[in-house]
Amino acid sequence: MSLLIVGTVAFDSIKTPFGKIDKTVGGAATYIALSASYFTKKSGIVSVVGEDFPEATIKEFNRRGVDTSGIEVVKGGKSFYWSGSYHTDMNTRDTLVTDLNVLADFNPVVPPAYLNADFLMLGNLTPIVQQKVMQQMAKRPKLIVMDTMNFWMEIMPKELAETIAMVDVLTINDAEARQLSGEYSLVKAAQKILGMGPKFLIIKKGEHGALLFNKEQVFFAPALPLEDVFDPTGAGDSFAGGFIGFLDKSKDISFDNMKRAIIFGSAIASFCVEKFGIERLLELTDEEVEERVQEFIDLVQFDISLV
Amino acid sequence: MSLLIVGTVAFDSIKTPFGKIDKTVGGAATYIALSASYFTKKSGIVSVVGEDFPEATIKEFNRRGVDTSGIEVVKGGKSFYWSGSYHTDMNTRDTLVTDLNVLADFNPVVPPAYLNADFLMLGNLTPIVQQKVMQQMAKRPKLIVMDTMNFWMEIMPKELAETIAMVDVLTINDAEARQLSGEYSLVKAAQKILGMGPKFLIIKKGEHGALLFNKEQVFFAPALPLEDVFDPTGAGDSFAGGFIGFLDKSKDISFDNMKRAIIFGSAIASFCVEKFGIERLLELTDEEVEERVQEFIDLVQFDISLV
Repeated sequence: MSLLIVGTVAFDSIKTPFGKIDKTVGGAATYIALSASYFTKKSGIVSVVGEDFPEATIKEFNRRGVDTSGIEVVKGGKSFYWSGSYHTDMNTRDTLVTDLNVLADFNPVVPPAYLNADFLMLGNLTPIVQQKVMQQMAKRPKLIVMDTMNFWMEIMPKELAETIAMVDVLTINDAEARQLSGEYSLVKAAQKILGMGPKFLIIKKGEHGALLFNKEQVFFAPALPLEDVFDPTGAGDSFAGGFIGFLDKSKDISFDNMKRAIIFGSAIASFCVEKFGIERLLELTDEEVEERVQEFIDLVQFDISLV
Repeated sequence: MSLLIVGTVAFDSIKTPFGKIDKTVGGAATYIALSASYFTKKSGIVSVVGEDFPEATIKEFNRRGVDTSGIEVVKGGKSFYWSGSYHTDMNTRDTLVTDLNVLADFNPVVPPAYLNADFLMLGNLTPIVQQKVMQQMAKRPKLIVMDTMNFWMEIMPKELAETIAMVDVLTINDAEARQLSGEYSLVKAAQKILGMGPKFLIIKKGEHGALLFNKEQVFFAPALPLEDVFDPTGAGDSFAGGFIGFLDKSKDISFDNMKRAIIFGSAIASFCVEKFGIERLLELTDEEVEERVQEFIDLVQFDISLV
C-alpha cells in the first residue's frame, strides 16, 4: 500500500439551483480515493461506515485499486450523513443536517499493510483522529497532506495546531487561511501558517483557483472557467485526491512536481462539479483527464522572453 | 502619434484603511497614459481640465512622451473631482463625492496629429463621448480598446451597446460582465458579450486576476499575490494602459501577443496599488517592471508534457 487515505465515507443529500439528490454516496475519503485512483492503484482507506453503506460502492472502490480493508463496518450502525443546500452563486451553502452516527465514536485502526505507506492523506476530520493515524504509522510517511476546516479552528484550536505542526502540506480555503492566521493578506497569512510547522500550504480559492506556498516560492493555478457548475460538493476533496494521487504516482515531492500535481488536482476537481456527487468521477476516462490538463496549459501558458 | 488615449484627467481624494490623501492627481487617462509610457513614447491624451489643474503634471506627461495638446483647459473651470473611501477588504468602496465640473460639457476634439493613430484607448467615460472620438478618426485604428462601468449600463444601455459594437476589445470587471450579459457564468457571459460586437473581451477580477476571451480561446492571468494593497485606485486603468502600451510598442494584435500584453498590464497594475494614487507609477523603473513580469512567469509557469 503506497497511499493511505483517512476521511469520511458517508451519505450526502444535496440541493443546488439545478436540482437535488437524496442520500447519495459521499464523504471526503470517497472523493479523495476516487480521484487518486486515476493516478495510483495502490491506495487504501481508513474510515468507518454503518451497515447501511452499499456493498456496490465498496466493490467499485476495489475495482479501482482502492483497498477497503481499513473501512470498519459498525454492526447496526448508520453511516455519517450530511445534507446541504447551495445558494445561487454556488460559493456558499447552508448545512441542513449533520448526523455523525458511527463517526461519533470513530477510533481509527490502520491495517498492517498500510503502516509503511509513503503518502498519507488526512481528509477533513477531527484533528484528534488525524493525529491518531499519524501516531500508528510504522515509519514517517514521505509526505503527509492534511485538509481541515473552520469548524476545528473554532472548537479545538489547540489540538488543531498540534496536528498542523505534524504534517508537510496543509490545504485550506482562503477564508480559513485568514481565520487561522488572523491576516487578511494571503501572502502574510501563508507565511504565518508555514511558521506553524507545515513546509507547504495550499490555499484553495474555489472558482478563483489555488495557491501553493513554501517559505520562498509561490505558485498559482487557476480554476478552469466553466459554463456551469452543477454541484460543488467534493471539489476540494477531488482536488486533494488528484494532487496526492499524482504525487504518489510520480514519487517526486519537489516544488516543481507539486505544481504539476496541483494542475492535475484542479483538472479532476473541474470534472467533479459537472454532475451531482461522485457521478462524474465514476465515469471519467484517462483521455478526458489529459484533455482537461491540456486546457489548463492553454489557459495559462504564455511566452515572454525577457532580455 | 501612435496611441490615442481618451479619458478623465482629474483630482481624487482617497481614503483607505492605511491612510488618506486629499485632491491628488488622478483620472482614467492619467493612469492609462503613465502606465503606457513605460512601453511607448508616442501617445497623446484627449481630455478636459479646469484652470486648477497643475502645470507640473502636464510637464510630467510631456517628459514621458505623452502629448497633451488634446487636453482642453477650460478658463475659469474646475477639473473633475472624485472622492471615495475603501472598505477594509479593499474590494469595495463608497463614492463620497462626484463633481463633474468641466467634464459635464466635455465635447472631445481630436487634434489633427492624432487622427491616424493606430491604437485608441477609450477610458471610462460616457459612451457618447467615446463614440464622438471614434467618429472623428481619419482612419479606423488597428485596435480600439474600450473601458466602461456599471453606471452606463444603468443609465444609457442603448448608447452603451452602440458603442460596444464599434470597438475591438472591451474591458469590464466580473460583476459588470454579469450585469451586461445577464449570465452568472463568466464563460456564458463572455460569449454573449462577444456577440454584441467586440472581438475580444477582458474580464478584470481584481485580486483574482483577469480573463481574456475571443470566440474560440480563453486566457487567464492571475494577479500577483501582494503582502499589502495600499490603494486600489487606478489599478484597472493602469492595467489597461500597460496592456495597450505594450501592444502599441510591439505592433502585434494577435491573441498570443495580447496574452503578453495582459501580463505586462497586470505587472504595472500590481505596482499601482503599492502607494497612493499615481505615486508609485511616477517612480517606477524599467528594471522593476521586468523583475515583476519575471515574478508573474514564476507564479504561473509549470512544465507538463503530455504524451
